[in-house]
Amino acid sequence: MTKTEITEAHRAYIACLNRQDWERIHEHVADRVTYNGAVIGVHGYRKMLVEDFRAIPDLAFNIALLVCDPPVIASRLIFDCTPKDVLFGLPVNGKRVRFEENVFYQYQQGKIAAVWSIIDKAAVAAQL
Amino acid sequence: MTKTEITEAHRAYIACLNRQDWERIHEHVADRVTYNGAVIGVHGYRKMLVEDFRAIPDLAFNIALLVCDPPVIASRLIFDCTPKDVLFGLPVNGKRVRFEENVFYQYQQGKIAAVWSIIDKAAVAAQL
Repeated sequence: MTKTEITEAHRAYIACLNRQDWERIHEHVADRVTYNGAVIGVHGYRKMLVEDFRAIPDLAFNIALLVCDPPVIASRLIFDCTPKDVLFGLPVNGKRVRFEENVFYQYQQGKIAAVWSIIDKAAVAAQL
Repeated sequence: MTKTEITEAHRAYIACLNRQDWERIHEHVADRVTYNGAVIGVHGYRKMLVEDFRAIPDLAFNIALLVCDPPVIASRLIFDCTPKDVLFGLPVNGKRVRFEENVFYQYQQGKIAAVWSIIDKAAVAAQL
């Protein structure tokens, strides 16, 4: 995939997440996707995202930075949201929090095959 | 700067850190460098790194992934080290820990002008 193809595929993936279109997630994520080195598969990936939106009803993925060097695209995502109870083991309980995620996605045959993510959980703890 | 120039400059920067060559850090980092949005300057940057090596005598920066899309280069760094007492507010006390950092570096005129970093502090806490 070219840089343009990956960038466009990635923006479509983020849009899919933001409209919670779980029926189409398999169009963006490979069957045997890995997350931080572990095979979780597209079903595990979808389950993780559904759970994220359950914990954070107003969750939205906002791209602050997009860096594409095929087959990898790296992104800094910004979240500004109000998790309803516990998030990352922290009692957020409806408080508005802002935090970032720095994440790498490796594409293969048009889909995300590997993800390496770090979420700034310490930033959330510092806001409580 | 081209992709090749940034990648080479970046590998030289990492080598400079690993040999703790603080006298040459200003060759790699801009005077008014920002770190996660705050201007800390090259002096603040150097101070932060000197403190990191003080807390972790066997600290080494290992590049697991390098993604360059000028003027930004993103890196996943792996640390496998034995912090001597407290690290990220956690009582590590000489235990060997492994953790990652996902970080973006924006280059300007041959030097790092902005850094957006997230260190996986939760991974360190989970190993204690």
